[in-house]
Amino acid sequence: MLGKSFQTSFFGESHGRCVGVLIEGCPPGIKVDLEELNKELEKRRPGGSIYVSPRKEEDRVEILSGVFNEFTTGSPIVVIIYNKDVISFYYEKIKNTPRPSHADFVARIKYYGYNDYRGGGIFSGRITAPMVVAGYFAKKILKRFDVEVYSYIKRIGKFECNPSIEEIKKSTYKSPTRFPDLSKVEEIENYLKEIMREGDTIGGIVETIALNLPIGLGEPPIDTLDGDLAKALFMIPAVKGVEFGAGFNFSVMKGSEANDPYIIKDGKVLTLTNNSGGILGGISNGMPLIHRVVIKPASSIRKKQRTVDLEKMKETEIVVEGRHDPCIAIRAVPVVESVTSIIIADHLLRWLSWKELLEK
Amino acid sequence: MLGKSFQTSFFGESHGRCVGVLIEGCPPGIKVDLEELNKELEKRRPGGSIYVSPRKEEDRVEILSGVFNEFTTGSPIVVIIYNKDVISFYYEKIKNTPRPSHADFVARIKYYGYNDYRGGGIFSGRITAPMVVAGYFAKKILKRFDVEVYSYIKRIGKFECNPSIEEIKKSTYKSPTRFPDLSKVEEIENYLKEIMREGDTIGGIVETIALNLPIGLGEPPIDTLDGDLAKALFMIPAVKGVEFGAGFNFSVMKGSEANDPYIIKDGKVLTLTNNSGGILGGISNGMPLIHRVVIKPASSIRKKQRTVDLEKMKETEIVVEGRHDPCIAIRAVPVVESVTSIIIADHLLRWLSWKELLEK
Amino acid sequence: MLGKSFQTSFFGESHGRCVGVLIEGCPPGIKVDLEELNKELEKRRPGGSIYVSPRKEEDRVEILSGVFNEFTTGSPIVVIIYNKDVISFYYEKIKNTPRPSHADFVARIKYYGYNDYRGGGIFSGRITAPMVVAGYFAKKILKRFDVEVYSYIKRIGKFECNPSIEEIKKSTYKSPTRFPDLSKVEEIENYLKEIMREGDTIGGIVETIALNLPIGLGEPPIDTLDGDLAKALFMIPAVKGVEFGAGFNFSVMKGSEANDPYIIKDGKVLTLTNNSGGILGGISNGMPLIHRVVIKPASSIRKKQRTVDLEKMKETEIVVEGRHDPCIAIRAVPVVESVTSIIIADHLLRWLSWKELLEK
Amino acid sequence: MLGKSFQTSFFGESHGRCVGVLIEGCPPGIKVDLEELNKELEKRRPGGSIYVSPRKEEDRVEILSGVFNEFTTGSPIVVIIYNKDVISFYYEKIKNTPRPSHADFVARIKYYGYNDYRGGGIFSGRITAPMVVAGYFAKKILKRFDVEVYSYIKRIGKFECNPSIEEIKKSTYKSPTRFPDLSKVEEIENYLKEIMREGDTIGGIVETIALNLPIGLGEPPIDTLDGDLAKALFMIPAVKGVEFGAGFNFSVMKGSEANDPYIIKDGKVLTLTNNSGGILGGISNGMPLIHRVVIKPASSIRKKQRTVDLEKMKETEIVVEGRHDPCIAIRAVPVVESVTSIIIADHLLRWLSWKELLEK
Repeated sequence: MLGKSFQTSFFGESHGRCVGVLIEGCPPGIKVDLEELNKELEKRRPGGSIYVSPRKEEDRVEILSGVFNEFTTGSPIVVIIYNKDVISFYYEKIKNTPRPSHADFVARIKYYGYNDYRGGGIFSGRITAPMVVAGYFAKKILKRFDVEVYSYIKRIGKFECNPSIEEIKKSTYKSPTRFPDLSKVEEIENYLKEIMREGDTIGGIVETIALNLPIGLGEPPIDTLDGDLAKALFMIPAVKGVEFGAGFNFSVMKGSEANDPYIIKDGKVLTLTNNSGGILGGISNGMPLIHRVVIKPASSIRKKQRTVDLEKMKETEIVVEGRHDPCIAIRAVPVVESVTSIIIADHLLRWLSWKELLEK
Repeated sequence: MLGKSFQTSFFGESHGRCVGVLIEGCPPGIKVDLEELNKELEKRRPGGSIYVSPRKEEDRVEILSGVFNEFTTGSPIVVIIYNKDVISFYYEKIKNTPRPSHADFVARIKYYGYNDYRGGGIFSGRITAPMVVAGYFAKKILKRFDVEVYSYIKRIGKFECNPSIEEIKKSTYKSPTRFPDLSKVEEIENYLKEIMREGDTIGGIVETIALNLPIGLGEPPIDTLDGDLAKALFMIPAVKGVEFGAGFNFSVMKGSEANDPYIIKDGKVLTLTNNSGGILGGISNGMPLIHRVVIKPASSIRKKQRTVDLEKMKETEIVVEGRHDPCIAIRAVPVVESVTSIIIADHLLRWLSWKELLEK
Repeated sequence: MLGKSFQTSFFGESHGRCVGVLIEGCPPGIKVDLEELNKELEKRRPGGSIYVSPRKEEDRVEILSGVFNEFTTGSPIVVIIYNKDVISFYYEKIKNTPRPSHADFVARIKYYGYNDYRGGGIFSGRITAPMVVAGYFAKKILKRFDVEVYSYIKRIGKFECNPSIEEIKKSTYKSPTRFPDLSKVEEIENYLKEIMREGDTIGGIVETIALNLPIGLGEPPIDTLDGDLAKALFMIPAVKGVEFGAGFNFSVMKGSEANDPYIIKDGKVLTLTNNSGGILGGISNGMPLIHRVVIKPASSIRKKQRTVDLEKMKETEIVVEGRHDPCIAIRAVPVVESVTSIIIADHLLRWLSWKELLEK
Repeated sequence: MLGKSFQTSFFGESHGRCVGVLIEGCPPGIKVDLEELNKELEKRRPGGSIYVSPRKEEDRVEILSGVFNEFTTGSPIVVIIYNKDVISFYYEKIKNTPRPSHADFVARIKYYGYNDYRGGGIFSGRITAPMVVAGYFAKKILKRFDVEVYSYIKRIGKFECNPSIEEIKKSTYKSPTRFPDLSKVEEIENYLKEIMREGDTIGGIVETIALNLPIGLGEPPIDTLDGDLAKALFMIPAVKGVEFGAGFNFSVMKGSEANDPYIIKDGKVLTLTNNSGGILGGISNGMPLIHRVVIKPASSIRKKQRTVDLEKMKETEIVVEGRHDPCIAIRAVPVVESVTSIIIADHLLRWLSWKELLEK
């Protein structure tokens, strides 16, 4: 279970019956529109383009509980997304030869061989679909406070962009690679095609900007806003790092360069720069929250790799068959946005309690 | 409260009575040696050298509960470290002019002005002392499984090193800057002196290597080992990013470069490389766990900075007085090591339960 | 979410799509047999007899996740039971006139009118079906330690019994009222028929005995075994009290009567009496765990009752239509047994961790 | 850790350095007056009278964190009460012969012999002092909502009373036995003297009434208000049962007698009777919350009892020396009141969050 006031639990396996989410603590009175929800889910499916998995995930969503007459009831919400189009034959074949840098090997050991290894089981990227579902509910809470969250591809292999917030809003989903610099669309496509041709994959960085957070979200010393975001972001398969504001660049910065001076603008206290990425002492400071996550290249490559036959306990080789995504960072964009929204929603609900008590 | 089986809560303020930790779930029978514990705490105090805070923190530690006849009892443990040597006058003076990139401003808003602002209150680096205390208990649990954790300065401003594990073990605490490449000691000292002379500070990166973790620590989809480590590491003031294995470098890597092939060595399944940093799918894979955290430069600089007078609501300037640390990353080294140990201990205890059930 | 190592969350509404349970932390390798599981669920349905609800709940169970090749995988388990046979018309009619001693009124206020009021929504006895499902998994864990849990009707209105453990095992489910004294079957049936004729209902007491618990379950000072059981038992609709061992009778007992002297039998330390009900200081002491819960009479009676029209804000009257159960305590028997098993399983898994550490 | 928004953890041993409490989540801005707090603690000490423990617990309280300038800061609060007047010699002597119905035996097994057995360690009644401390903070939160909590002795052995709320408020603490029927003071004193003369003890029942709770506290299906209260009340040593409203008496009641009809009074919806004890469906219904806990007779009696020498593994006898309380239910009164306040405060804070969101 993730969170305290807005709690989410994810379940389901890639080739099982479904994937889904349980949400506890979601306030009543939130309008739920299945069409809208499906649109959010579609963001995970760049479909039609050459550089994404051809798996046709016409996600069939079903709300099992917690919604009545199109509004949340305040009771536990369960939403599932049925699985389809699954061929498990291949996974029986490679059961004993773990794919390098997949979770096959650790899962086998941790679960004493009882794990559902088909399609990666719970480690599949498919588990991110219910994260987007939970994000849908979270964003509805955020909307009441005008909080907006935008994720986009900051880096994909050798390409990097530095867009304005307007460009991010306008261009991210116009770009098949969620890279808001639309002038690079063709170049990146060719780059990814080349990578695919090699049977290879490439990593990327997803940046997220959240606007209009009230000052005061975060509960240090333990439940810091950045810490809670980081923990949640590591649920997303292939995330290997998280940084806020100037992030790892802080390591070569001086205090006089890094510090964000306070100014007054339109009667409000702001900072002149935002190296802090909107968080100080684990608490939102009213400036845009900025974080970046690195997504490793998909482990499923068509190139021959060394591995081990765990039954015979001898070294062997594997060529990973099946669907291949040249850059899973692209699909991660709406997921990162959703997970960020989930954590902010949780902290907004926590924060409301003191607000009501102290301001009434 | 942090953790599930080995639970820690931190409390105390910089200029209050003490700082401390409550530990719930620590198993009985762990030998507690105050002298040893004090030695761990001393690691936070490079004292005597020019480039660390001259505050004489002769930490007086007191165990309030949970230890009897020199062994943990299995009941809640509370350990406090009394505060001393505190002059709060300065903080009254700057009460209304928040220090840039400190938590002064957010704390004032979040806590409706009731926060203890003296010395940064709960946001002070002093809160890391009880983290080292908790780490002491955690490391004792780790020792039963031969798990070892080593942190060191990977980068300090323009200096970076790439030491072997033997060098890390041998040289980290011989170096006043916890930079295991001892050939650079003088050069770095001069570098830091120069920074101090400017009234400035510098950031750094702390790398951590944990050896001998069993395969299977981590409880995805939510309580991943990397996610839980990340959340905990953000408790440490000034941490702005966390990465595992190849980390942010994954963004420019291809799958064929990034994947860690499986091999057999001495009858055990290992990986040839360790770009994954010992974690796959949120679960330890038996290879060394490797993470890096970036520590921003200390916000307390002697240079004049822009800020705001919150009473008069007008812009003004501030020069931060008091103790100054040219590079707080140095002091963070034993803290990062402790926090990492705390999380691994928690996951070891969780993991034992299934182990006992399924292997007996 | 209930529990720490074996965690359960319940969801669903009486007239919604389904009711269900999410289980997190269930160990891998537990055999799951749908037929067995259905048999457990049938225990809630004394069907065919006159004194229970005629609702035909041919419970269709579906496992959505966490089970693969008939064994638990170690990942989150979701099991749902589809709803059927629901007529919601009546609930629209009484929407504004809360049924006395039902949750209608509090639900309306708490959830700001967004609650699913049909059939009592989440407050329906139907929510106890997934508790029995979770109990099925819990009992499988218990079985590994030879722990057995038996619940039965101790009191139903004016009838009370004091059966031996053998009688409980043998006769509880032979009796249509779960009252193991089979000599009373006819008398109680007539009693309940008379109550039904009056359009009334009657309360009861369910006693539970758990055998073979290891010494040491329970984690005081907060997570006591009795406290955790009590909390969980109050999830069951209509439970209004819980007592252990001599329970409320302790109020008139002297210490010399109440204390359980220690003896040695077959080389083991036991107590001569068991007024403590198997728990001392919040920890299992190796003697049979004994508790009793009181179940209030079903609130749905056919007699005219005073209530309020919440729209018109004026007093009015109501006759509750629909299915009526003369004594819901009867149906509660397998639920109490399941909830008790869930909590013991959670504490067994917690307890294993230290056991493995300290005894290895 | 107990609770979600107002979280408490208790620590300390009877003969250790201190007992204490950590509170996380307490809102800032609560006035803390040490004199007031000490008065609350004094309620546990009927001192001067013959029938209570002669232990002079001049409780020296120290606030270690979370309070600044006499107000709570919003950060973790730690308050300790130093131990004094402890003679541990006796406990060394009986180390191997567990006192019947004390926790000596289970503690020894659970903690593998590492527990602090002196004075009962963490199982001592002394652990209830920090519960009263936490209750002090909780009551301050309650006061903002005009919620009041009153506990008193309902039954002490053969004496029972049925006072009005006015009598309870006025007379409970005038009575040395917290029995508000002051006409019985002498009779009860003689009764207790007689019990003491026999070297025996007696049980009792503490009833609690909480007034002015808003409608809507409680978060079913799991975190019910009654369930959370029950769990917390079992932290108090010697509690063996909890019931709400008509409680166990419901087992012989008919629905038509048990149901509480709704009426309108002064424009508000109330119930005519309050058999439900202010809770329906796990949620407060606006009527007075009423619960009763049974306190078993103190296990420490001066009569000879059978026990076992655990070293020699043979049966033996024990006469418990030291301080004896003829009726510990009396001392439990302020503790039950405090624990009830702690849980209501937690649920008030949880409830505020939705209130702010949905009513703003």
